[in-house]
Formats: sequence, C-alpha cells, structure tokens
Amino acid sequence: MADLSAYTVRTDLALEARDLVAEARRSTEIPGVISEITEDSGIRITNIQVTTDEGARAIGKMPGRYLTIEVPELRKKDSQLQDRVATKFAQVFEQYLQQAGITPDSKILVVGLGNWNVTPDALGPLVVENILVTRHYFELMPGQVSPGYRPVSAVAPGVLGTTGIESSEIVEGIVNKSRPDLIIAVDALASQALERVNTTIQIADTGINPGSGIGNKRRGLTFETLGVPVIAIGVPTVVYASSIVNSCIDMMQQYFRSQTSNTQDILGMLDDLPEQERLALVREVLNPLGHDLLVTPKEIDEFIEDIANIIASGLNAALHDAVDTNNVAAYTH
Amino acid sequence: MADLSAYTVRTDLALEARDLVAEARRSTEIPGVISEITEDSGIRITNIQVTTDEGARAIGKMPGRYLTIEVPELRKKDSQLQDRVATKFAQVFEQYLQQAGITPDSKILVVGLGNWNVTPDALGPLVVENILVTRHYFELMPGQVSPGYRPVSAVAPGVLGTTGIESSEIVEGIVNKSRPDLIIAVDALASQALERVNTTIQIADTGINPGSGIGNKRRGLTFETLGVPVIAIGVPTVVYASSIVNSCIDMMQQYFRSQTSNTQDILGMLDDLPEQERLALVREVLNPLGHDLLVTPKEIDEFIEDIANIIASGLNAALHDAVDTNNVAAYTH
Amino acid sequence: MADLSAYTVRTDLALEARDLVAEARRSTEIPGVISEITEDSGIRITNIQVTTDEGARAIGKMPGRYLTIEVPELRKKDSQLQDRVATKFAQVFEQYLQQAGITPDSKILVVGLGNWNVTPDALGPLVVENILVTRHYFELMPGQVSPGYRPVSAVAPGVLGTTGIESSEIVEGIVNKSRPDLIIAVDALASQALERVNTTIQIADTGINPGSGIGNKRRGLTFETLGVPVIAIGVPTVVYASSIVNSCIDMMQQYFRSQTSNTQDILGMLDDLPEQERLALVREVLNPLGHDLLVTPKEIDEFIEDIANIIASGLNAALHDAVDTNNVAAYTH
Amino acid sequence: MADLSAYTVRTDLALEARDLVAEARRSTEIPGVISEITEDSGIRITNIQVTTDEGARAIGKMPGRYLTIEVPELRKKDSQLQDRVATKFAQVFEQYLQQAGITPDSKILVVGLGNWNVTPDALGPLVVENILVTRHYFELMPGQVSPGYRPVSAVAPGVLGTTGIESSEIVEGIVNKSRPDLIIAVDALASQALERVNTTIQIADTGINPGSGIGNKRRGLTFETLGVPVIAIGVPTVVYASSIVNSCIDMMQQYFRSQTSNTQDILGMLDDLPEQERLALVREVLNPLGHDLLVTPKEIDEFIEDIANIIASGLNAALHDAVDTNNVAAYTH
Repeated sequence: MADLSAYTVRTDLALEARDLVAEARRSTEIPGVISEITEDSGIRITNIQVTTDEGARAIGKMPGRYLTIEVPELRKKDSQLQDRVATKFAQVFEQYLQQAGITPDSKILVVGLGNWNVTPDALGPLVVENILVTRHYFELMPGQVSPGYRPVSAVAPGVLGTTGIESSEIVEGIVNKSRPDLIIAVDALASQALERVNTTIQIADTGINPGSGIGNKRRGLTFETLGVPVIAIGVPTVVYASSIVNSCIDMMQQYFRSQTSNTQDILGMLDDLPEQERLALVREVLNPLGHDLLVTPKEIDEFIEDIANIIASGLNAALHDAVDTNNVAAYTH
Repeated sequence: MADLSAYTVRTDLALEARDLVAEARRSTEIPGVISEITEDSGIRITNIQVTTDEGARAIGKMPGRYLTIEVPELRKKDSQLQDRVATKFAQVFEQYLQQAGITPDSKILVVGLGNWNVTPDALGPLVVENILVTRHYFELMPGQVSPGYRPVSAVAPGVLGTTGIESSEIVEGIVNKSRPDLIIAVDALASQALERVNTTIQIADTGINPGSGIGNKRRGLTFETLGVPVIAIGVPTVVYASSIVNSCIDMMQQYFRSQTSNTQDILGMLDDLPEQERLALVREVLNPLGHDLLVTPKEIDEFIEDIANIIASGLNAALHDAVDTNNVAAYTH
Repeated sequence: MADLSAYTVRTDLALEARDLVAEARRSTEIPGVISEITEDSGIRITNIQVTTDEGARAIGKMPGRYLTIEVPELRKKDSQLQDRVATKFAQVFEQYLQQAGITPDSKILVVGLGNWNVTPDALGPLVVENILVTRHYFELMPGQVSPGYRPVSAVAPGVLGTTGIESSEIVEGIVNKSRPDLIIAVDALASQALERVNTTIQIADTGINPGSGIGNKRRGLTFETLGVPVIAIGVPTVVYASSIVNSCIDMMQQYFRSQTSNTQDILGMLDDLPEQERLALVREVLNPLGHDLLVTPKEIDEFIEDIANIIASGLNAALHDAVDTNNVAAYTH
Repeated sequence: MADLSAYTVRTDLALEARDLVAEARRSTEIPGVISEITEDSGIRITNIQVTTDEGARAIGKMPGRYLTIEVPELRKKDSQLQDRVATKFAQVFEQYLQQAGITPDSKILVVGLGNWNVTPDALGPLVVENILVTRHYFELMPGQVSPGYRPVSAVAPGVLGTTGIESSEIVEGIVNKSRPDLIIAVDALASQALERVNTTIQIADTGINPGSGIGNKRRGLTFETLGVPVIAIGVPTVVYASSIVNSCIDMMQQYFRSQTSNTQDILGMLDDLPEQERLALVREVLNPLGHDLLVTPKEIDEFIEDIANIIASGLNAALHDAVDTNNVAAYTH
C-alpha cells in the first residue's frame, strides 16, 4: 500500500512526501492535499494545504498548512540573495502570525530545538542566539517599552542525550511558567534529496510532530500537547545515505528514458521497482553494514550560520514592527 | 553599622564575608558563625556554619553550611593537582548528599547557570556539558540500567538577557515537569580578591540566593522557591576593579606595618579608614568614570575549562557509585 | 585503460586505489605493489609498498610505503578502544621515524593542513593544537631541557581561500627559517567509502602530493619541494555523494549474487559495467545538477575531535621518549 | 631618571607613555614629541610624532607616527557608532598607506598576531578571519581580477607557546616566499588604564617592537627585520592589576585635591611619591603574592569581536577601492 509506506519515507518535508505519493500514484492530484506554487527570481514558494484526514493519511503529514521556500542558489553565499530571502520569509511568516490570531500584545516564545555541539543539528540554537529578545523589558518596566516591539522570549532546551529530559518536557515546563500566546519552534530536518539540504525552509502551522527532525524526538510540540498554537520552522540539513542512492537511481532512470525506450535493459529490475520498494532495497543493503548514515555537506558550518541568520532576521522583522528588513542586520551577528 | 554594610560588599563567598566582618570587629569570633579549617598538601578546606539568624545578619549570608576549597596553585595547570582536587571535591560533596538525605534512587538535576557566550560566566554551562546524564535511560528502559548509576539530568537555562525569561522561572518549570529530589546549581561568582579567582570552589547547602553570581539574578534557586533542596556550587571567576584596589591598599598597609610603626605618615587617612569606608571611597572614585568594571584574568579561557572539568569529574564520581576518581576522566572532555 | 583511470578515482587512500585496480583487473596481484595485512582485536593494519614506477602508475600513488589503520568500531566513542588505537599508532609511527633516520636530537615540525572553520577539514589544526611543543625550550634554554624530549614545533598554515597564499608556500617559508629535520603533515582526506570516514588513519612516507586532501592543494609537501623528508598522516573525513551511490550499487550486486545467478535481470547494464565506467555514469548524472557534493556524517564534530586526539596522543608518545601511552592524555585536551 | 623609567611602564600605547612622561616632568612639552588632538562627536584622534632620538628615549617609543583613535562609548554596543569608527579608521589608515608609498598594485600582507585560544589575545586572528583576501586570484588568474581590488593576503602565525617558533620567524619565512610590499600587523596590547581597554585603536608606522603586545614577543616585526614597511595596528585588551591600583590612587589624589588643599594628610606618602615610584611600590606589594595579573573586562568576548570587526571592515575599505564603508559589512561576519 503506497499510502502507508509514505510514513516510512524519512523526509520531514511535506513537499517531498507529496511528490513521492504523487509519483507512486502516477497522479499529481491527491484528494485532501492542495498545492500552489509561485516563483520569483530564484525563490520558489510552494504552499501545501492538507485539508482532510484522507490527505493527511496519504502523505503522512498532519492536516495543516505547509509553506516551503526553496532557493537553490542559497549555497553560493550571495549576501544580496540572502537579504531577499529574509525579506520574503518575513512576509510569508506575517501571514502565519495573522492566521494564528496574533495581536500586537501577544507574547511569543521562540524554541530552538537541537544540539549546539552537532553542527547540522545546531540550527535551532543558532536562530535563538540571534533573536531580538524583549520579554524581560515588558516584565521589568511595564508600560515603558518603545512602541513597535512585542514581548518575545527565546530558549534552546537542548536534546535528550545531553540533558536527560525530553525537550518537549522542558518546553512544557517553560510554557507553564511564562505563558506565551504563540510558540515558534525551529528545528533541523532530514530531507530525501541532497539538493534541498540548506537551501529550503519549511513553515508549518502544525507544530513539531513526534519523531520529526534530526534528533530522536519521541514527543512533539503541538497545540494539543502545549495548549498554545505552535508554528514550526524547519530546514533540511541532513539526508540519509540511502536517500542519496535512491534519488540518484531515480535520476539515472530519467536520464536513460530521455535517451532510449528500453531502460529495463539498462537498469534491470531497478527500473520496474516502485520507488518505495527500491528505497527499501537500498536500505536493506546499506543498513546491516552501518552505512546508512545521516550525512551533510562538507560546508555545513557556514551554510547553517547563513540560514540561521536568514531565519533570525526574518523573524525579528516579522515579530517587531519597529524592525524591518533594512535595519534587521543590526540584531544578528 | 558594620553588620549591615557587609551586605554592600560584593562577594559571593561566605569565607570572604566572614573575614571582612571579623576584621571590622577586630575579633575572630562572630556569634552564630562557626568555622573550621583543614589543610592537606596545598588544598585548604574551610567549613563555615551559619547557625543563627544573628550570624546570618552579621555576615550577610543565609543560615547553612558553606564549604570552601582553596587551591592557590590551581592556575599552574598541574594535571595531577587537578585530579587530587576533583577527588577531594567528590569526597566532601558526598557528605552534602548524605546530609540532604539522598538515597541511591534519588533523582538529581544539575543546573548550570550563566551565559555560554561570556567566558567568565560560562562555568555552569561548561559543567553541564560534562555531566554524565542518565535520567533518560531510567525513563526509557526502567529496570535495565546497570547498577551503580543514579538518574541524573542536567540543563543550562541561559540568562535573562538572552532568553527574556528569569533563569529561576525556567528551572521552576523544568522542576515541575521532571520532579527531581535534589538540585545542584553551578554558578560563576564574584570575589573580593584576585587571588581567589579560579582557585576556589564554594559548596553551600543554602541554594542560590537572589542577586548572587555574575549575572543579575533577581530571584534565587532555593528550597523555599522550588520545594526541593538545592546545593549550590560556585567558583569566583571575576572581581571588581575596586576590590583589587582595596585589597592592594590593605596589602600595602600590612607591608608598611612590618617595616615601620608609623604607617599613618605613609598612607595618611587611608591607614585609619575602616575597610568598608575605604572600599566605599575607592568606588566613589571609580564608579562615576565607569572604571569599576568586573575584570577577570587574561587566561580565563583555560582556567575556566580546567575548573569546570574538576567540578564535573567530581560530581560524576560523587553521584554515581560506578564512577570513581580513576575512570572519571572518561566522562569529561 | 584501467591504469590511468585510477587517477580519476577520487580517493586519497592507497588502500582503496589498490582495491579498485585489483578489482578492475580481476587479480589481487599488482606488479610493483606489495600488501600485507595484520589484524589485532578490531584494529586492522594494511601495509602497502609501492616499489616500482609501474606499481605507482597502476594505482596512481607515488612509490613509497602506505600504512593504513582501520578501526570500524572507532565511531562508537569507546574510550578504551581509542587508547588502544593511539598506542598502536605510536608503535607503527616509531617505525616510520626510524626508517626516516631520525635521531634523538632531530628536530620535527608538525604541519596541520586544512581549515579551522570547516569541521571536516579541521583535522590538521586540531592535531596541531594538541601537540606537545618543545622547540622553544631548546632554543631559549639550550642544554637545560629534561631528557626524553625532542625539539618539536607545530603550525597550522591555513588554506588558500582564507590566507591568499598556498599552504605549501607558507610551510616552505617556515621550513627555511626553522630548519627541521623531518616534517609530519596531517590532513583530512576524501574516501570512496562512507564506512572508512573517521575510522581510518593512513601514514605515508611520500609526503603530501598535489591535489590530495579536501581543499584544493595545487602544490604538495614532499622531500622534493622542501628538501626534508615528509611523513603524511591522513584521515578520510568526507566522501563524494557519487562514491556513496557507486559503492551501494556494488553492494547490491554482491547482495544479489549471493541470492541468484542472474543478477543481470536485476541490475541490467549496471551489472556489466566496469566499476570505473559505472562511477563515471553516476557522476554524469549527479554533476550537472550540482548534487555530487562532498558529504560527511552528521556527527562529524565529535568524530573529528576523537580522532585528532588519538593522532596527537600517538604523536606525542612517538616523538618524546618521556611521554608514553599512559601519561599521554595529560598533553591533550 | 624619569626618561628611562618610562621603559618600565607596561604600556604599549605611545599616548600613555607620553602622558606619563609629561606628568613626571610637569610639562606638556617634550622635545622631539609632537602631539595634535582632534575630536569629532565622541571619536578623539591623537596624532603623536616622535621626531628625534631624544623624543624616542624620553617616552620609550621608536621614532615614527602613532595615531590613536579613542572612543569611550565603544563598549556600549551601538552599531551606528561602530560604523562611524570603522569609516574614520579607514580614512586615517589611507593616509598611512599613502605615506608608505603604496600604489594600486602594491601587495599587502595582513598579519594577525596572538593566540586564538586566549580571548583577549585573539584580536589579530579575529581580524585576519574577516579580511577580504584576494592575492590568490591575482596569482591564479592574472589580469582577470575586477578593477578596484588589490592583492591582499592574511595569516595568523600563532604564538611561541603553541607553535614552538617565534611568530617573527614564521612571518619572515612567509614574507620571503610571498614578497609583499607592505605588512599590516595587528596585535592585542596592554594598557595602563582600564578605561582604554577595548575602546582605543593605535596605528603606528614603526611596526611591532620586541616585547610589545600581550604575549612575550622577543623579536619584533619592523622594516629593519623584514625589509618591508610594517604598519602596526593595536588595541589594548588587558591591563595589569597594578596599573588599576595605580591609576585609582591617582584619581583619588585628583579627587581630594578638588576638595581640600591638604591631600598629604589624606594620602600620606602616596601623595608625594612620583608616579613611577608609586607604581613600583604597588608592584612590589602585588608581585610576590602573584597578584599582579593581566586582567580584562568580563565582557571581553563580545568587545573583542566588535572591535575586530571594526578594524577588518576599515581595512577592507582602505585596501580595496571597490569596497567602501557602505558595502563593507558584506565581507565581515
């Protein structure tokens, strides 16, 4: 059953999950899943709405809105492009804030999930480090904060392996004490495709679901568990070795199809195998040898800093009216 | 009134507070404050018990037990001495555990206060990074953890300026969720004397009191606020410029007294001035110019790593029977 | 022509180059290339001698001795295994020192190639940071250094992209001024196989050859260019995406061969294609899309610190008689 | 003899050396030392020219031009002020370039002295990290580099204690190979006054003299030793504990003088003592106890990053016509 097998695909991106199912079904129409794509000079935005439980089951993602910003050139360290992406991010993020019913007085908590000491998992903590934090001014000097700022706090709760406590438990404890109106959770994700690593940002109004992200999160951060709406921001920073192999075989298939009608001679059984089964086969070969590692590009250190800055700049601009995309750099390192 | 002025002295060490009051009163006996000193090849341990409210008012420290380990040679990077100090620390810390009524099943939470990004304030987070964390094994595989381990968790809650939330609030939230039986709070302190910086460890069963430590903690971490006993571990890593000046004038006084009977000709009014007033004078001179900074030795980076390792090694050995001072290094970086 | 194509294989390991050629030739015997394998409780040592120009051309590596230490379990963070590997490394490295005619007075320069700020390329600088440096004591206090030490210096010359100068030019300048008798050059390498990343150490008496290692080294560090013998130590820390795909197809082939006689039905043309051509095909598919990135395991940060410590500990023990594998940890962080 | 004692004063700033001598002589005129001060909204520039050997002996600084930029508010993290200082720095630095006879084709080597791992000594390496390096483009693609750029390289040679080689020897070796026309050497300095720490930049056309800076440099970087003009850029990041005490006593003296005519009653002999002798006394008291440490403000981590960015931005703008103070931020982190 292709539908359920979607769950076994190790992607945290709704975009990839939808594409896989569409391909397996040989149909771009998936009932309960609405997609819309816009493109603007190198920035592609895909807006996916999972509107029904049927759609959710089909692609293995909770009902909700998943917006993906793809910028293939983002790895080229073009600082002008980075500024454009931050501005675009701030614009689309403001829609999420409105949709969540956020008013100028609403209190926001930014949660940076992940591990400081594992570079591809450090996205969340890096974003938190550059968030313009203001909640304490509102608490210590109520009525005296300049207009145009909103009470924002930011924490990096660490990971289970270094704290001994589920990050969701830590966040729950902090939420109970600090009572935010909205949580923004930032996390590093796993993708199916090497080309999306560090070039893609996903925003989802569904929160963080159990098992998503790089670390083994056994519990999620959602409205259901926390009693507060949670917007999730994610960037794929890693990919399974098996995903690389699988997408390469896929590309080989397309490559040969453009050249010959008889791809089966070339790729044998691999040509026939449905994508899910082929991936399962690849894993069956790699896993026992311990070769199905999560891998990341060599340049991850600078990629992740760049994209954390983009997200932090975008959030600072979206959260505070007094900050716009021109002066936003002043608040990040 | 000498008693109250003790509160104005910027020291987080009970040892220094007691010495100042004793000097001001020209008496080593302070009612309600019991001291005992032992010394063992370069490691001096002073055990101060504040037994009455009168004693507490006198030295400006809460009633309780304050044990100070002083190792003047600790800055010399002698790794054998470091091992001896870690072992000694583990021994005295075990007494604190017993006194707190801790059993082999008791759950411990280590809290590393302070700011990652400010080297002399990073002691707490650095200790947390090297704590052997085990709580999650007890939660995920109850009954299957090897004997000799205790459920230990560890968090670094950040500081108000970077999270927007009081660290005490964050800890309270985490305590409410994870329900430890004992909290061990590690924090960087301010001393009065440059020679104690990075050479002294204080253990106190009083918890962390408001306003102590380097950052401006407006609320404390105590049994009263958290409902759980709190043992505080602190190391002075900074000193006020005014403290340096004041203790130097003090040393000059002693220096001249050993050479002449007429120190007043030499030091003028400074010779007569009670210590507290002299310090107030020094501050009056330095403050308006913004020169009364908190300073730290140039070599703070390596000093703080060494002393964080000593504390983490000592804690790992004291908390887990299966870890002793021989294999302890395996658990720290 | 199998011989030349070996050059196109992106591996810095003589071991892998030899295996590829042996496979292409369907013969384990390669004239001019002598191999010897020993194995000792999880540590496999392969000693490859390239004795003739014919052998050199065959596997695309300069004539000389290439010793490879493979420890598949090295990623498991077992500190006892790490100690055993450091001891073994020191033992085999001492053979290289003897072979290079090094006496107790000989001066050694350790060169850590690579870029501090790119984690998988930071191996060299990390090793340099933990080398026990003594040359300045011999210069400043000749005749007064304790016996059992040798004059050792250590530099990390940076990379072309951040200095604007070839690292070989910088090293040449330093060699001209400091006149060492032997250079030990440490560099991060690219492997063909994900399982060798961070589990393998290669020692070669041929120095560093142009184009080897992760960064684009356009010139080498060899006896020919520097006038001093150069021993190269390398650890593969990255692998091309195309190598992962290629070795997976290889494993699939073996997997199916163990199950059926008719692998061609299954793998089609891929089954027939010689390894080199198959790899070329994979690259042809990945390259135009920019997907043939150098990738590294997610946990690279801790892997690289562990292996840098092993190498630094081993070098400290091999270079100084007064340091042995028991006290060696005192000299590394 | 006041003149020689100037050498014993531990300041690397010509400005402080001149003030001390002027005070000792009770005269603002020092033959052979010309000073000029300009001030512009919070940025004070003092231009000191040591024109004769007599002047050089008087203040203990080599003949040459010493320009000091003092910005007391620089610690307040005002990013607009930082931009103004970078612009001003670029302007005055261009004068130094002209004076050194630098043409658009001249090759520049930036040398960052100091130790990465000791925060207050990391100024040089931090500046180097943010220098826009271009020399390799000129070497690899001669004639194809965009106009407005000059060949710039940058190295951080490390310190004697971690390399075993004098940094001057390493630089000499690199200069011999890469043949720059001008060297810009950046180093952290020691000041006499806590208020100048991290708020002051000195530019000197005399190069780096032996014994200057934080680490124990036993040899200098000068035209005489390198055969190339050397411009030195320094920022005081540390101060001796004894300097703090001494300048506080000085401030106390001024404080009492403004209130009474009889300061001798108040300060005793300290009032009469010439500054040099008083400082010697303070040291005599602090030294034996090991209390005369070099200290640095608690916030050194962020201070040093800010000021390194200012210098790197200023240098990038001054060295490359295509970079100006508006787009300069794009080249620094």
